[in-house]
Amino acid sequence: MPILYGNRRTYATQMLTVTATAMLVAAGPMSGTMVYAQQANADAEMAMDIDHAKILKEAGVIGVFATYKVNPDYYQRASAERRGGVEEVLAVVDAHKSKVRVDAYLTRGLSSESDFMLRVHAYDLEAAQNFMTDFLETRFGMHTEVTETLTGITKPLNYVTKEDSPDMNAALSSASYSDEEPKYSIVVPIEKDAEWWNMSHEERLSHMEVHTAPTLEFLVNVKRKLYHSTGLDDVDFITYFETADLNAFNNLAVSLMEVPENLYHEQWGEPTILSTIQPIEDVVATLSALK
Amino acid sequence: MPILYGNRRTYATQMLTVTATAMLVAAGPMSGTMVYAQQANADAEMAMDIDHAKILKEAGVIGVFATYKVNPDYYQRASAERRGGVEEVLAVVDAHKSKVRVDAYLTRGLSSESDFMLRVHAYDLEAAQNFMTDFLETRFGMHTEVTETLTGITKPLNYVTKEDSPDMNAALSSASYSDEEPKYSIVVPIEKDAEWWNMSHEERLSHMEVHTAPTLEFLVNVKRKLYHSTGLDDVDFITYFETADLNAFNNLAVSLMEVPENLYHEQWGEPTILSTIQPIEDVVATLSALK
Amino acid sequence: MPILYGNRRTYATQMLTVTATAMLVAAGPMSGTMVYAQQANADAEMAMDIDHAKILKEAGVIGVFATYKVNPDYYQRASAERRGGVEEVLAVVDAHKSKVRVDAYLTRGLSSESDFMLRVHAYDLEAAQNFMTDFLETRFGMHTEVTETLTGITKPLNYVTKEDSPDMNAALSSASYSDEEPKYSIVVPIEKDAEWWNMSHEERLSHMEVHTAPTLEFLVNVKRKLYHSTGLDDVDFITYFETADLNAFNNLAVSLMEVPENLYHEQWGEPTILSTIQPIEDVVATLSALK
Amino acid sequence: MPILYGNRRTYATQMLTVTATAMLVAAGPMSGTMVYAQQANADAEMAMDIDHAKILKEAGVIGVFATYKVNPDYYQRASAERRGGVEEVLAVVDAHKSKVRVDAYLTRGLSSESDFMLRVHAYDLEAAQNFMTDFLETRFGMHTEVTETLTGITKPLNYVTKEDSPDMNAALSSASYSDEEPKYSIVVPIEKDAEWWNMSHEERLSHMEVHTAPTLEFLVNVKRKLYHSTGLDDVDFITYFETADLNAFNNLAVSLMEVPENLYHEQWGEPTILSTIQPIEDVVATLSALK
Amino acid sequence: MPILYGNRRTYATQMLTVTATAMLVAAGPMSGTMVYAQQANADAEMAMDIDHAKILKEAGVIGVFATYKVNPDYYQRASAERRGGVEEVLAVVDAHKSKVRVDAYLTRGLSSESDFMLRVHAYDLEAAQNFMTDFLETRFGMHTEVTETLTGITKPLNYVTKEDSPDMNAALSSASYSDEEPKYSIVVPIEKDAEWWNMSHEERLSHMEVHTAPTLEFLVNVKRKLYHSTGLDDVDFITYFETADLNAFNNLAVSLMEVPENLYHEQWGEPTILSTIQPIEDVVATLSALK
Repeated sequence: MPILYGNRRTYATQMLTVTATAMLVAAGPMSGTMVYAQQANADAEMAMDIDHAKILKEAGVIGVFATYKVNPDYYQRASAERRGGVEEVLAVVDAHKSKVRVDAYLTRGLSSESDFMLRVHAYDLEAAQNFMTDFLETRFGMHTEVTETLTGITKPLNYVTKEDSPDMNAALSSASYSDEEPKYSIVVPIEKDAEWWNMSHEERLSHMEVHTAPTLEFLVNVKRKLYHSTGLDDVDFITYFETADLNAFNNLAVSLMEVPENLYHEQWGEPTILSTIQPIEDVVATLSALK
Repeated sequence: MPILYGNRRTYATQMLTVTATAMLVAAGPMSGTMVYAQQANADAEMAMDIDHAKILKEAGVIGVFATYKVNPDYYQRASAERRGGVEEVLAVVDAHKSKVRVDAYLTRGLSSESDFMLRVHAYDLEAAQNFMTDFLETRFGMHTEVTETLTGITKPLNYVTKEDSPDMNAALSSASYSDEEPKYSIVVPIEKDAEWWNMSHEERLSHMEVHTAPTLEFLVNVKRKLYHSTGLDDVDFITYFETADLNAFNNLAVSLMEVPENLYHEQWGEPTILSTIQPIEDVVATLSALK
Repeated sequence: MPILYGNRRTYATQMLTVTATAMLVAAGPMSGTMVYAQQANADAEMAMDIDHAKILKEAGVIGVFATYKVNPDYYQRASAERRGGVEEVLAVVDAHKSKVRVDAYLTRGLSSESDFMLRVHAYDLEAAQNFMTDFLETRFGMHTEVTETLTGITKPLNYVTKEDSPDMNAALSSASYSDEEPKYSIVVPIEKDAEWWNMSHEERLSHMEVHTAPTLEFLVNVKRKLYHSTGLDDVDFITYFETADLNAFNNLAVSLMEVPENLYHEQWGEPTILSTIQPIEDVVATLSALK
Repeated sequence: MPILYGNRRTYATQMLTVTATAMLVAAGPMSGTMVYAQQANADAEMAMDIDHAKILKEAGVIGVFATYKVNPDYYQRASAERRGGVEEVLAVVDAHKSKVRVDAYLTRGLSSESDFMLRVHAYDLEAAQNFMTDFLETRFGMHTEVTETLTGITKPLNYVTKEDSPDMNAALSSASYSDEEPKYSIVVPIEKDAEWWNMSHEERLSHMEVHTAPTLEFLVNVKRKLYHSTGLDDVDFITYFETADLNAFNNLAVSLMEVPENLYHEQWGEPTILSTIQPIEDVVATLSALK
Repeated sequence: MPILYGNRRTYATQMLTVTATAMLVAAGPMSGTMVYAQQANADAEMAMDIDHAKILKEAGVIGVFATYKVNPDYYQRASAERRGGVEEVLAVVDAHKSKVRVDAYLTRGLSSESDFMLRVHAYDLEAAQNFMTDFLETRFGMHTEVTETLTGITKPLNYVTKEDSPDMNAALSSASYSDEEPKYSIVVPIEKDAEWWNMSHEERLSHMEVHTAPTLEFLVNVKRKLYHSTGLDDVDFITYFETADLNAFNNLAVSLMEVPENLYHEQWGEPTILSTIQPIEDVVATLSALK
């Protein structure tokens, strides 16, 4: 639990009532950049706000995954400045919340490449980029380096559909996650080889059915989500998992290795991004050495 | 919209009337370098100015793509200095405009490798290099690092020509871009393998016809441009796309994966460079934390 | 033997009796972060403490291997500050000892990638991450960069079991390490290819029996431990060895090259991490230039 | 044209008459290193000076290609210091001119890896290394980072000789470069695979004849030079080209892709180093922001 | 020839008579670390000193190759401090000479990865690591970065032995190095593929005989030494060469490419480390800008 605010639960909503003037006073040489918080919010009031639950279930949604490393010089800053950095991040998230949904993950200690990951959903890429640009201008973001980005788009199921694969499709719906709240997330980018793409749709469907079968038993303890990336990034798919049970996840991953579809992978992971799922205020406070 | 100039639309043209003296006064330790702006402009008046629309359509034109990352120390500079950096960039673009066409793209948040990309067209590489050298000497450019360059040359169609492939050639002309103004650009460098190059021209033509067929439907919502790079760079082609519809682009990319020509790729992307298309003043102002 | 404390053997236990106030006084700008030592300890008192010997033998245990490089700027710090850095590391190890077991290794001089390695065992990954996050906040950790992480989970034997391979299983138990105390550790991450995973379990078992046979003679002078990583990291296994006899280990490694199972490796090592096994206080004192 | 010296054409020769005292006065903390200029020159007077034209045509000559990136901090130095850096480079080139020939190339803007390239010829590698060591000690060189080196040795023709391939050998001599002065240079390192080296000399000769045939037409607009590197570096050959016509060079490169010999390449380029050929004083002045 | 000491030839031996007090006075913030020089020496007097000639010929000897790059900030240090850095390096080499043999090589200008290489021989790896740890704590070492390490162990001949291959074994002994004192060293790390290791010993012996035959003629002008690394590092062998004739070495390397054994290489070089062989005092003085 972060210790920097008396009552953080009410902080996020209060934040928007802070006057721009007060924020500018508190801010350092970059303070001029904080004006956007009010501006973006004003714009948002005029547009239709996104539904943060619904956007996770829809097709045609852009998902951007970005990992970041905190520069060591950040820890030389006074704690007041670091506290201000955390506040600015929360204000930016809030200012953009009508257009983007942001999820945060702590990777520190589990990755040499990064300290945290953000997953950003939006209906258009520009909105996601605007958020990320503003995030990098906060006093926290300024001290981070982007170490990986993955961009994809959600689509309707394209193999195991009700029409093409009715039994497998039904099996997928027959069980749902029932384990305790997931603590961990795993992101696995995937690239298929040219031989895969040169198979007929029917051959690929048949492979995907064999691929799906051994995964059914893990529906109860591993959540999944798929993004399509061909042409948008150097991978074909971003697969996203949440679980509370890493042993089960390891078993699921092994089962995905043991099917013929695995013979057509140009890339599986590299990087595999393992993290703990945390509220963004906790991630940023921890990495600001304020917890 | 950048907020730093009262009326930016008139800024670019006014810039050239600024005296060298004023610019030197405003500039810091590097100010001596600003003299080139006047010099390059003087030279330009004596040569035939390039046509910025025509140069995009011609063969024999050099295209250089360069991505850049802004060094974090830039954001420690006073905002006045950053404002001066933006002005210098615009002055350099203007000073070289008789010899090079410069397009700008914001990659921040969409790439871990870069914050922006420039696409430079010129009739000879030296003119492009001169621009880029001057760009890197501005107070903005000084704080950037070049993270990727790709150099190519435009050529007449060499497979699907009116002579060799009349039907496919006609199909390519039968539709044109009709979607809204493209917001996004995607650059995909491509390298073919030795087996590809060792096929006869006829075999390759036949592959390119199969490759082209499924792309026809995307003529209406994806623009394309091709540069040849064999021997000039470590790829064979630079493919450049513009679109407003990333879902359509993802479908186009998948269709390019599904043809046999894809079996002969040594490299496809890596990096795939996704960006938003923006005026250079917006790109530089945003990255100077002045928007 | 570190020379910085009069009687280090009693240091670790004393450390926890040091008041938070005293620690904050001694600490620099990051001092606020030291409070966790007390907090973590308080939490620990309420949970069941882990058994540091037992956790090395059990299945279902998370193992995280992390290598670190010390930033050169650390050596510009006053020796008093470096001494404080060592003390903070020991306090963090102690504060987390009820939840994680930490082993330390000196890689300096034997690796261009790192100066030391930590191996962290815990029953859940979150506990390991908490330790590593706190470690990186010490005045020593702040001056290190994580250069590699490997995460795995221990499992029961899955090929050469008493049921499936009784003779080989018995052979594995027939000899045990009898050489002098191991001075060296070698970590070898391993990734199998898709062809391996697409074999039947019986085929793989048969390969593992052939793989195991020539290793039996090295049971007396090389200790081993295995972690499973598929899906948790970009390798399938982390193999960990301890030995006092590097010539014997080289012979063992060659014998592992000479069997058909070796034909199915996508990755073997890369990095191979060779180190000397040392108490963490020695590793940190040496790298703090305090020995 | 550099503007820092009244009359640069006479500068290089004057340089050697500058007294060591004057140079030491002008120099900063590193000034002690400038003494070598006089010393190396004194040594040179006693040895046979190399012929700078002849050394380009002979076998048994060492060629070292090195690319360099200028560190951004260089541009924070006062212009007087940067001017001194340029002078020191010219003095070092001059001091070593009896033993090494140095050619310079500007890569800035055309490469993310480097800003310039030096090509150094000498009869022994030690002389080349001595030059490069002195170069890196100048106030300009101190602010550069070596980003790539390639070392090779020139040899007599070993395939298309007068004896083994009389017609092709004659064809190679039948045309010579007749285009305008080359403005551009391209360096392409090449590594052949084990299959290539395991062919008989006759098979390889036959491949090289097929390889050479389509290149004959480019003798008039592309100059070439070959260095052998097996065992001296991680490539087998360094191929060096000069041209004024990049379109012709692209066509030549494509023709080299289209022959069976191309099937035996482990590496072709990577990096391909494209640059403009310039006097070293121009390269260094440009990169010192003094043009 | 270094110019910093009146008479360097007598320096190394005098060094040990310098009192610890004097060294501490001369040293900066890190001075406390210099005490080890006396301590290590004291320890050495009690152990059996190694024979520096014999250790090069024996089996069971550990060889560590490490390359280093000097950080640019070193050259901003006063020359007195750099002089002190050189002295500390010589003192460390001397203090450890009873346990390790150290050879030095200048790579500057011949490698983008490093400025120098050390080759360290010891009977146990710990002694080598102790030397390298102390070396990195000197005021010179503190300003270097380790860029590559390779660790191996010497073994008796294992293919072309007197028993298995009497003729080839005799041929190897029939000629010895007769060229002038070698000026150059080349280190080539080698990794064999799984197919190689899965051949029978007899097949590999037969390959090694074919491999050895064309190398016999180079016994007179290229010296060689082999280290075994499987499991100790990510290569199988470290091959070390010395020569005065780089043209001969290139011919030898080509002959090693032209035999079938070359078809089983996973890695050959990468990096190939080319250097000039120099006394460590010269290497360090040159890189300290003191020559």
